[in-house]
Order: sequence, then structure tokens, then C-alpha cells
Amino acid sequence: MPLPQEFHDLAARVNNWGRWGPDDEIGTLNLITTQVVREAAACIRSGRRIPLALPLRQDGVQTGVIPGRVNPLHTMTAVNHEIFGPGTVATSDDAVTMGLQSATHWDGLAHVSHSGRLYNNRPAGTVTAHLGATALGIERATPIVSRGVLLDVARAHRTDRLPAGHAITPEDLDAAEELARTTVRPGDIVLIRTGQLQHYLAGDRQAYAFPSPGLSLRTPEWFRARDVAAVANDTLTFEIFPPEIEDLWMPVHALHLVEMGMLQGQNWNLEELSAVCAEEGRGAFFLSATAEPFVGGTGAPVAPVAVL
Amino acid sequence: MPLPQEFHDLAARVNNWGRWGPDDEIGTLNLITTQVVREAAACIRSGRRIPLALPLRQDGVQTGVIPGRVNPLHTMTAVNHEIFGPGTVATSDDAVTMGLQSATHWDGLAHVSHSGRLYNNRPAGTVTAHLGATALGIERATPIVSRGVLLDVARAHRTDRLPAGHAITPEDLDAAEELARTTVRPGDIVLIRTGQLQHYLAGDRQAYAFPSPGLSLRTPEWFRARDVAAVANDTLTFEIFPPEIEDLWMPVHALHLVEMGMLQGQNWNLEELSAVCAEEGRGAFFLSATAEPFVGGTGAPVAPVAVL
Amino acid sequence: MPLPQEFHDLAARVNNWGRWGPDDEIGTLNLITTQVVREAAACIRSGRRIPLALPLRQDGVQTGVIPGRVNPLHTMTAVNHEIFGPGTVATSDDAVTMGLQSATHWDGLAHVSHSGRLYNNRPAGTVTAHLGATALGIERATPIVSRGVLLDVARAHRTDRLPAGHAITPEDLDAAEELARTTVRPGDIVLIRTGQLQHYLAGDRQAYAFPSPGLSLRTPEWFRARDVAAVANDTLTFEIFPPEIEDLWMPVHALHLVEMGMLQGQNWNLEELSAVCAEEGRGAFFLSATAEPFVGGTGAPVAPVAVL
Amino acid sequence: MPLPQEFHDLAARVNNWGRWGPDDEIGTLNLITTQVVREAAACIRSGRRIPLALPLRQDGVQTGVIPGRVNPLHTMTAVNHEIFGPGTVATSDDAVTMGLQSATHWDGLAHVSHSGRLYNNRPAGTVTAHLGATALGIERATPIVSRGVLLDVARAHRTDRLPAGHAITPEDLDAAEELARTTVRPGDIVLIRTGQLQHYLAGDRQAYAFPSPGLSLRTPEWFRARDVAAVANDTLTFEIFPPEIEDLWMPVHALHLVEMGMLQGQNWNLEELSAVCAEEGRGAFFLSATAEPFVGGTGAPVAPVAVL
Repeated sequence: MPLPQEFHDLAARVNNWGRWGPDDEIGTLNLITTQVVREAAACIRSGRRIPLALPLRQDGVQTGVIPGRVNPLHTMTAVNHEIFGPGTVATSDDAVTMGLQSATHWDGLAHVSHSGRLYNNRPAGTVTAHLGATALGIERATPIVSRGVLLDVARAHRTDRLPAGHAITPEDLDAAEELARTTVRPGDIVLIRTGQLQHYLAGDRQAYAFPSPGLSLRTPEWFRARDVAAVANDTLTFEIFPPEIEDLWMPVHALHLVEMGMLQGQNWNLEELSAVCAEEGRGAFFLSATAEPFVGGTGAPVAPVAVL
Repeated sequence: MPLPQEFHDLAARVNNWGRWGPDDEIGTLNLITTQVVREAAACIRSGRRIPLALPLRQDGVQTGVIPGRVNPLHTMTAVNHEIFGPGTVATSDDAVTMGLQSATHWDGLAHVSHSGRLYNNRPAGTVTAHLGATALGIERATPIVSRGVLLDVARAHRTDRLPAGHAITPEDLDAAEELARTTVRPGDIVLIRTGQLQHYLAGDRQAYAFPSPGLSLRTPEWFRARDVAAVANDTLTFEIFPPEIEDLWMPVHALHLVEMGMLQGQNWNLEELSAVCAEEGRGAFFLSATAEPFVGGTGAPVAPVAVL
Repeated sequence: MPLPQEFHDLAARVNNWGRWGPDDEIGTLNLITTQVVREAAACIRSGRRIPLALPLRQDGVQTGVIPGRVNPLHTMTAVNHEIFGPGTVATSDDAVTMGLQSATHWDGLAHVSHSGRLYNNRPAGTVTAHLGATALGIERATPIVSRGVLLDVARAHRTDRLPAGHAITPEDLDAAEELARTTVRPGDIVLIRTGQLQHYLAGDRQAYAFPSPGLSLRTPEWFRARDVAAVANDTLTFEIFPPEIEDLWMPVHALHLVEMGMLQGQNWNLEELSAVCAEEGRGAFFLSATAEPFVGGTGAPVAPVAVL
Repeated sequence: MPLPQEFHDLAARVNNWGRWGPDDEIGTLNLITTQVVREAAACIRSGRRIPLALPLRQDGVQTGVIPGRVNPLHTMTAVNHEIFGPGTVATSDDAVTMGLQSATHWDGLAHVSHSGRLYNNRPAGTVTAHLGATALGIERATPIVSRGVLLDVARAHRTDRLPAGHAITPEDLDAAEELARTTVRPGDIVLIRTGQLQHYLAGDRQAYAFPSPGLSLRTPEWFRARDVAAVANDTLTFEIFPPEIEDLWMPVHALHLVEMGMLQGQNWNLEELSAVCAEEGRGAFFLSATAEPFVGGTGAPVAPVAVL
């Protein structure tokens, strides 16, 4: 079943292919200029640091529905091992197996293709089982440090958590921007809070996973108009799921990653950030969120920190 | 063989047990106050961002000598998979297996014990094969954002790379501090460059691993006197290896992690940072280096970024 | 809470420590003599081969309740990769991460300890996080080829599947032995069918896992009296679960593995074997069930085959 | 570069496509009839069992040259863990990550394709990163039990180990067959000993890997004429490596797996078997070598046992 005309129309309106040259592999991260970073630094006022990553653990957010996207399996390879003999200094060591997109992560630009193409007209076939993403790999998307803006859509709706069927609209973003007391600018990284993560934090990963509120088909144009550098939120699916249009699956993924060349973040914990921003009456901060640079990765875990 | 008296004397001089209360699990990270973070922000002048992590790949720095500390194995679980049927949006997904301390990483406080004890008098037995570090786990050491200072010992010695047998002394650190045109202050994170990583970057991981220049037994007191929050460098072994005193293995690890409660970073790429700092005539910057929060981890990968 | 006297009495009656010398590491596998193997060969009459392993897949029998015992994660490292250039022969390669005891497996003798001891009075401490089982590792338990006898307890009870609360008794084993038309002899490997696996085969892994019928506290003496070499069945827990005596957990594991030095098999698929044995009016066959020889393994996957 | 005409001529002469129907997925394993198994059973005379698998360990035969084919990483998830409280029965558990073809293994029929095709004219595209081999997966190739015949080419040449450049010829196989005092028959599994594994057993995995003696282009016809069910040997590369004809890489793999539909075994330890066969003046035995049934696997570890 081909993608509908509506999708292609949207794609044409947000497309960034060629904008940063035919060889570009980082898309909207190009918008983070040194000037943007300096302005981000100016947002640091109290010096308060807020971590946005979920702890990495075997009872993470994955439910098993997506094959291969396994929660972190943490295993020990040594426990208080006296390598050099009895009475010497002892070490403990560990290893992990995990899906790169199983926890708090960035979707890389090679994560999604449609019609045989990745961002910037790269063939989908540049992703191989042997080497992973030979173009557009997540290792190229480094470093990710910019101004962050929290768009607290749940709070703007005066609720703790948006209902499952809530498709976030441009109007929702406008309202949340007003609440943030700032204007979203080129190079900003926008964090959108739905409150959906509260399901997981309360122990119910099934409710967290599905059904989920999330971004609607109409939001990519909003991000494109403001030239944001990246978007992350506090859901597993990022966009509303099940989707708005029958049989049009993951259109927001395709518009962001393929057409715009814009990274997406999922499973970010925005709860403490929401409380602090409300308390301090602000929505802009310094954000540091560099992906672990897995060569060929189609995504990567990240341990983001907001500095206020 | 018991640890020698010399070690115990040093231990007594640098020990921080109880300093932040009997329940403290983050040690010298306590020194990163909001004031320190604000001063770090003031170091951002050009807005230039420099990544300090090595790319994560199967031909990483591990040689196989440390059992279980395996280089990242990146595997694919989907390549352009049209989940919802032919013609739909396609996704690629991946997974990884790796030693938590195999690449650019922080050693956590539970990584090392001696005489049956971890930092702050915790029993070594709180690390178990079942749960890993039930106290002092790396997930507690978040977020790590502070002022960074590069102590470029190689450059201070007017060389690209210190020779293998070079045990870095307090005098070396003093000279490098002068070169950095700043004074190391409480809460700073100190990055020490030996140039040893050049071996790996040139393709010779054996030469990189061993023998290695590194910190000497005399340096922990230097860090303790200045109350630095953490120390990282560009070697596999962190401290000089083979060790200075026969049969006294990994004493610097034990002093930093167990006695002081201070995180250590290894395999950090300081080459570009060194060039830029020399070019700009400075050594202080904003450093963001939050560990991936593996629950129970005795260490964790990190993707540090210096912002100048 | 100490183990009850009843347990210690049973332990004394079935104990095999020292029976094959102080250095023995394979326990009742010693009972498989060349004579036993020749008699096993004589059981091959039709030449029919019946596989007893479950397919290894991500939706395997593990439910996540036992941390670290993860179902197999099968990932690709190459798909039709033309290593030597376009048009050359192409290869596909794959990797796996799995719990050694997650699927059809043998529990090795190092899997269980009680009162600080493993089989043959080895200290429990010989199992380390660094090397796994430095004694009694599963790699020593090779090869496992002997006469197999199916004790089809479900069929003897004229049912497809024993109810969850059914604790298999010596009388059950006697009845099933009669049905098998053979006498259990020294060196035999006994396969006990409960029918419980039908839950999993029907798609309900929760019902399969718990609660479960299984061997009762009274059966180890039955196996000890007949000097069987190993026992396997078609459940996740092997013994009845929850246990017969409050707060006495896994007593059959402890009696078999620690006291007798007898391997246990779990998650074996005995459904086809049951049908064929019933059809052919027999219960004895040639059984080949060598564990994958993981060095230091406390258990291992096995792909057992019955040859009739 | 297209495959040369010589290859296509050989392919036409050994091809088995369609021979067992258009849907066949097990190829020459079809030749193992119940009659063959009964004859195999008749080979059991002494009852002696000889294991043919290498121990699975991190310092296995892989050198790192083949990306993703990692030696087994054995990690602990519990060590003497008293799950149900102090004083209760304690368990140790473990996990593994490994390349399916990293140790003693079978190459499955989906492991190799050429010209876009797998065995029996299946499209190469039936192997996907998402599901692995959706046709011809190793899980279908079960059980593997038959008569085994050792062709001890090294011994027939009166040497311990063939030189690296030795391409095994049909004449070599004839001579070794004579030494084995049997005639290779339809359904047999042939084990070919070069002695090359002695390099690895002596600690030199580089010398073991490359260069290597192995099967020549002329041998597939020999196996096809005798209708053997499978072939395994004691090398990493199976066929002579570097290859006999420049730029014709892995032709024997392609002829066996794609054209004939015949499994190949690698890294089998035939040293003890060689000694015992020589001692007993025989070369035929009962062989049990069922692959671990990984669903979608392009190969699998196996713990083969010869019973004499």
C-alpha cells in the first residue's frame, strides 16, 4: 500500500534535502551554531542540574512487542576479584546487552526510511546487517549541546497526563510555548511533555506503551517553521499511537527523520524538569544530550541533562 | 600479600569516609555545587563543542587481556523493515553487547575494593553477581556537569606523547596547570593528557594498552588538596602500568575510588581538546560528562563534551 | 532460616559425596558405562529420531521473573554480504545473547549450593563472577549419551496434563515405569512427562511457568535407589512449585544437584516422544543429550534427540 | 566480478535443487533414512563416547577478523544467590553472547547465497536482519544423527598436520577412505581431519585461522557422487584458504550449501577420534550432532559425539 498523497504533500513542505549540501549527514543539528550554544549558556542561572534519563535496568520500558529491542541485561564478569593475588586491590566488572533504542534514546537519521530513501536522498540500502548505518550513523550526530525548551503540553492543559488518544496539535505547542515564557528559535532542542511516562514510573509498562498520546501529523511543519534542531518527548512511540489516519503508520517518524533530517528522542523523563520549570517560571535551559557514538548505530542511548 | 604500610599512610591522608555523612554514595561529586556549575557556565565563550568519546566499535581499545571487558558488538535486529506491510514506513533497529568499562567510561565507586571495603566503609559484599552494585552504583552518580580543566602534561613536557614509563608527578600537574592558565578549584573535573591514545588512533591497540604512562602514587594527594570532583585521562590503565612499586597493583585506583570516593575516567580522547586549548590559550571549559545510568553498574560508558 | 531436619535426613539418604573419589566432578554421569551405552544402542530398532529441544527464540519460555535468565536474542551481523566484492559468494552471519538455562537445558552441578557447599563437598565459593564454575562446570559433563526411559506420568494418569498442584510421587513413577514396559536401570536417563509444556505450546507462558506440577521431595530416593544418571522433564521449575513444605524452596534441586551430583533437565519437549512411545508400546530408547560445553557454565542449552 | 564459468559447470554437476521437492528446506539431510540410522546403530560396538566440540570460552578460535563472529562471552547473573532468604538453597546463573558460528558449529543452508539465490532456488532476500533466515533456518535441520565416517587425510599422508597450502583432493579422500576400512555410503556424515586444529590447541589461533589447508574445488563432486548427508572438518575456513583460483572466494561453501543443500561443520575437534579410530582400526561410528535449533539461524553451535 503506497503512502497517501497527504503524506507526500506534508513531506514536500518540510523537506530539507540538499539544504546543507548533498553530503550532509546530520540534518537539523547543523542549526546548532556557536551563537546558539552561547545563548544556551546564558540560560544557566541557578546552576541546578536535572537528569532526564531513565535508569537502565532489566525491567525497563520495553514490553517485548518490538522484537530485538531488549531492555538492558546487566551481567557481572568479576566481583571483587583480586586479580593480582590474595590481599591485593580487588575489582568488579560488568557487561550489558541492550537494544540501542530500548531506553532513553535518540532515533538516528538511519532509523527510518520510506520509498527506499533515507534523509538527504541516501539509498535505504546504505543500512546493512553487516555494518549497520554506513551513512547517517548516530556516531556522526555528536556533540548535541544546545538551548533546550520544555513545551509542557500536559501542564498547559492543566492535567498531569494527557489522555491516550490526545494527538498533540500546533495549537497545543503554541500554548505550551506561551507557558514556557520564551520563543522557540532556530537550533533549539524542544522537549515535549505529555505525562505519559507516569504510567511506567507507577509500574505499568503496558499502559505506558500503548495506546499513547503523542505528536500529530500537523506538528512537523511547526518544528520546520521554527527550525528546531531536535525534538524529544516522554513516550515510547513519540507520535500518537495508534495513528490518526488508518494505515498511515509512523508518519511523524518519516517526516522528521527522512524528510527534515531531525533527530527524535523517546522515553525521556521530563517529570522533575516540569516541576522545576513551573517553580521557576521558565521553560528554557542549557541542554546537554550527546548520543553514545555507536558506529553504524541507527539510534543510541543518551543521558541528557538540563542545566537551569 | 597485605598492602604495604606506604599505601595505608597515603590512604589515611586522602580518605573522605564520613565527610558527606555515613550514607553518602557519590563522594567527591558532592563538591559540584550550583556555584561551581555557574562558574563552569561562565567558561563558555566561543560556543565551540568538542566531543571526548571514542567511537564505539568492535575494533575498540580492548585487547582481550581483561576477560569479559569486550569491545562493543553492534548487531542488527531489523534493516529497513516494513513493519506494517509493503510500501509502509520502514525501520532499522540494532542492539549491542559491551563491557561497561570497555570504551570511554567512568569507573564507578563500586568498581574497586580493598581489604573488604568500598568507599565510605561499605562492605565489598554489597556488590553481587545477581544485582551488581547494590550500593555506590554508577546510576547514583548523575548528573556530571562541572568546570573542566585540561592538564596537558604531554604538552607541558613539549612532547606529543609521554614515554611508556612516565609516572606523572605532582610537579607535572603543577606545570600543566600553569600552562592551562587557571587554578584547579574544588568541584573541578580534571582531564590529564598523556598523548598515549595516539597509539590507538594510529591503529596499535597493543602499544596503547601496555606499557602505559599514567598517574603516580603521589598524585592522589594533589587531587585531594584541591578537592577536585573527578579525574579522567587518555589511557587504558589510568595509572602508570606496570606499577611503580613491585606487587602494589592499582594503588591509585584504590586511593581514588575507595579512599576518596572520586570517579575516574579512562580512554578519553583529549587530542582535539589539546589542540584547541593550545590555540585559544586556555585550559578551562564547561564539561558535560554524565554516565549512562546503569543500575548496579560498577562503571559506565560516557560521551563527554567540552564546551569552550 | 536454616533448612529443616527433614531435608537433612533426606540428604543423608541420597548423598553420593566421595562415591567416585574426592576429585569427582561429574557425579552420577559416572554410572553411564560403556556397557550401558551398548545396551542403549540395542534400543535402536526403527531408526526413528525424535528431537526434544524447544526452538530457540525470543518468545521462549522465560517470563522475566528470573532476572538475567533471558530468552534468546538472535541478531544478525551480516545478511547476504558479498565479503570479497560485488558478484562474489555472499554470507549471512548471526549472534545470540541468552541465559544458559533459559530454554531446553541441563542444570549443571554448580547451579545450586546449600550450606556453603556444592556437590562432593566443594566450597560454594568455587563459583565466581569472574570465571563462573571453576569446579563442576558444565563443560566437564560431556558427553551425555545413554539409554533413555520415558516415564509418562500424565499418560499413566490417563490425562494430557497433570494439574498444577500435582506433586509427583514414587508411586507415580512406578506406574509410569510399568507403562514404559521396562525397568529403570543404573545409568539410565529418565525423562518425566507432566504435559505442563502444553501451556507454552498453546501460547501461554505464564500458565506454563507457575504454578507447576513437578517432582516431589520423595522422588530423589527413588532415583537414588535405581542409580539413574540424570533426570529431565517438561516443566520450567522441575520440581513442584510452589513447594510442598512452606519455606523449603527448591529442595529437589538441592538433593539432586548437591547431594547426589545428578544433572537435571528442564523445558524438554516430550510431546512427540510420548505419542510415539505410546504408539510403539515402549518407553526405552537411545538418548543423545550432550550439553553445549560452556567453560564455567552452571548449566547449558542442549538439543536432545531420542532414537527409537 | 561474475563467478567464472568453471564454477557454474561444477554447480550444474552437483546441484540438488528440486530433488526433494520445491519446498524442501533440509537438502541432503533427507538422505538420513531410518535404515541409515539403524546401520549407524550397528556401528556401536565398544560403547566408547568421544566428544568432538571445542570448549566454549572467550579465548576461542575467533581472531576478530570476521566482524560480529565473537567468541563466547560468559557472564554471571547470580552467584550462590539465596533467592528465598538467608540460609535457603542458593543458585548461580549465567548468560552468554556469542556468534552462532564462532565455535564448533554447523553452517546452515541460509549461511551462503550466490547470484541472489539460496539452496533450492530460494531468494537470498528470505534472509532478513529482522527475522534471520525465514527459510532454510538451522532450526529445520534437526535432528542430525547418522553414521559417521572419519576420513583422516593427515594420517593417510603419514603426518600430524597437513601443510597450510594443502588442497584436499578426491584422491586424498579415496586414500583416507581406504584407511577407514569402510565405504562412504548415502546418508553418511563425513568428518575430514587435516590436523590444522593442533595450532589452536597449542595456543596459536592466528596460525589456525590462516593460511589453512582445506577442501578443494574438486571435492564437492566426490561427496555428491556418494550422496553424503553432511561434511565437517577441523579447520576455521573449511575449504582451502586462500583459495585455489584467484578471485574465486568460498566456492566450496557455495557448492555445498547453495547447490547441494549440504550442511558443513567447522572447528570440530577430531584429534581424540583420530587416535581411537587408529587404535581400533576403524573409521565408522555412530554420530550424534544435532544443531542447537536457533529459529532463523544461519548456523548453530553443536556438541557432536561419536559413539564407537
